[in-house]
Amino acid sequence: MILTVTLNAALDVTYQVPEIDWTGVNRVRSVHRRAGGKGVNVARVLHGLGREVLVTGLAGGPVGRAIEADLEAAGLPRALVPIAAESRTTLAVAGGGGGAALFNEPGPEVSEAELREFGRVYASLLERAEAVVISGSLPRGVPAGTYAELAALAAEHGVPAIVDADGAALRHAPVGRPAIVKPNAEELARAVPPHGHPVEGAEHLRARGAESVVVSLGEEGLYAVTPEGTFRARMPYRVEGNPTGAGDSLVAGLALGLVEGAAWPERLRTAAALGAAAVAAPVAGDFDRDVYARTHPLIEIT
Amino acid sequence: MILTVTLNAALDVTYQVPEIDWTGVNRVRSVHRRAGGKGVNVARVLHGLGREVLVTGLAGGPVGRAIEADLEAAGLPRALVPIAAESRTTLAVAGGGGGAALFNEPGPEVSEAELREFGRVYASLLERAEAVVISGSLPRGVPAGTYAELAALAAEHGVPAIVDADGAALRHAPVGRPAIVKPNAEELARAVPPHGHPVEGAEHLRARGAESVVVSLGEEGLYAVTPEGTFRARMPYRVEGNPTGAGDSLVAGLALGLVEGAAWPERLRTAAALGAAAVAAPVAGDFDRDVYARTHPLIEIT
Repeated sequence: MILTVTLNAALDVTYQVPEIDWTGVNRVRSVHRRAGGKGVNVARVLHGLGREVLVTGLAGGPVGRAIEADLEAAGLPRALVPIAAESRTTLAVAGGGGGAALFNEPGPEVSEAELREFGRVYASLLERAEAVVISGSLPRGVPAGTYAELAALAAEHGVPAIVDADGAALRHAPVGRPAIVKPNAEELARAVPPHGHPVEGAEHLRARGAESVVVSLGEEGLYAVTPEGTFRARMPYRVEGNPTGAGDSLVAGLALGLVEGAAWPERLRTAAALGAAAVAAPVAGDFDRDVYARTHPLIEIT
Repeated sequence: MILTVTLNAALDVTYQVPEIDWTGVNRVRSVHRRAGGKGVNVARVLHGLGREVLVTGLAGGPVGRAIEADLEAAGLPRALVPIAAESRTTLAVAGGGGGAALFNEPGPEVSEAELREFGRVYASLLERAEAVVISGSLPRGVPAGTYAELAALAAEHGVPAIVDADGAALRHAPVGRPAIVKPNAEELARAVPPHGHPVEGAEHLRARGAESVVVSLGEEGLYAVTPEGTFRARMPYRVEGNPTGAGDSLVAGLALGLVEGAAWPERLRTAAALGAAAVAAPVAGDFDRDVYARTHPLIEIT
């Protein structure tokens, strides 16, 4: 089983409004609600590939129960730890013209006791895990070093961890000696001293404890700096679509390669193809199987 | 106990966003969630006045559970009938400049079986009711004559009904011989043939079966056309604030007068003062006790 951790699970809501009146009353034509957060999206992709997954994290209030209900409906096994505060909602208001405004709620504040309880549940879930993916933002009240601690706990259980984070959580993550840290180029630039090339930035994170670092460059492909050497994946062509969720799909590919013991070039090929296939799918957590099958053999690894 | 019926119960959500970017990503500074729908607001006002109330209606899905949880938190007794579809959310996005955009979800579709089950629950609740307030919009799948049927069922139990509705539901309502129908001037104009004066419009609804008709005119006060005669309430001064929920507060005042057996002039005074006191309160379902106390003796009844 691949465990995915989403400490700041969300309910992703999309309103379709044909003609938006930003100062008046709008009738919403359709409403879509879906459990979200980066770890949930990673689990969806792995589940779609037929892998056994388990979603853990924190969820609270009626919105937390809506997240649970949607995971249930999607057939995604879960072990979410309840919190008192209400989980966050993200709202996209999409108009007829194709534009969208996004509203991100501040999200819950997590208590020390709740975080301790999560640690207890997490440690027990590690007993059954082949790999763990720790990704997304930290809710308020959760210390920046938490992902490092979760990765270290996984390492103690012999479970390789992948961390996909930003900001302080990313800066601290290598201390936990995760198997893979996956920033994109902007996140990497914010987390390490100025560097001329993404590979130099990645080496900073490796020097701090990360075994391998994969830097995603959007349509420019990927760099992987690993004990086996440095690799680059280049995309065969540009895939049009929605980049939201592409990073999560890419991380799912890295997790797959990790549990299958694939060599780095093959891991990268799978990750890059899943990233492209997610761009071709309209919703985060989905991927286009045709694009995946078509892109996979064409990705160039050097 | 005063029973309030809210067939289209809602979760009223307000986002405060300091500077709204209608084409980009917004951090929501604060989120307020509150059970709503006109019958819920009426119950809040009556509860605030120390009256025993019971909220009934339909609620479904995670949003329905959020509505239940908020009623619980507010100490409002309830007997909501569950439905399969998800209850509606109304969202107000309020910017720093004071403006707000409103988004109304299409809301649930109710099945015949669910509506029958509601009828069964409603009939049993009438056994304990002194009065029933039936108000707000009808969810999809609920026939326009439903409020008339609910009022007729109340009459069979000897329970006076107040109906506050719009459109087809208002046009049908008098058939159920409700004690009071409460449209505002615009709703009345849409529901009856063209008339020169609100009192003439009210007489149309009385001719169809309504015992009394109260027409609210906003800051212009109220007309009541009743078996005891026709009365007008005039406001002593203009109250500044938020008119959302003023109609519900006014209806709470009418219900109070009904169960207390107050004469029409006194009922109107209470209703008009509660309407004004709701304008002075920022949130629907609340009212300003000082404004209520100050306005009440000054309202002129003719």
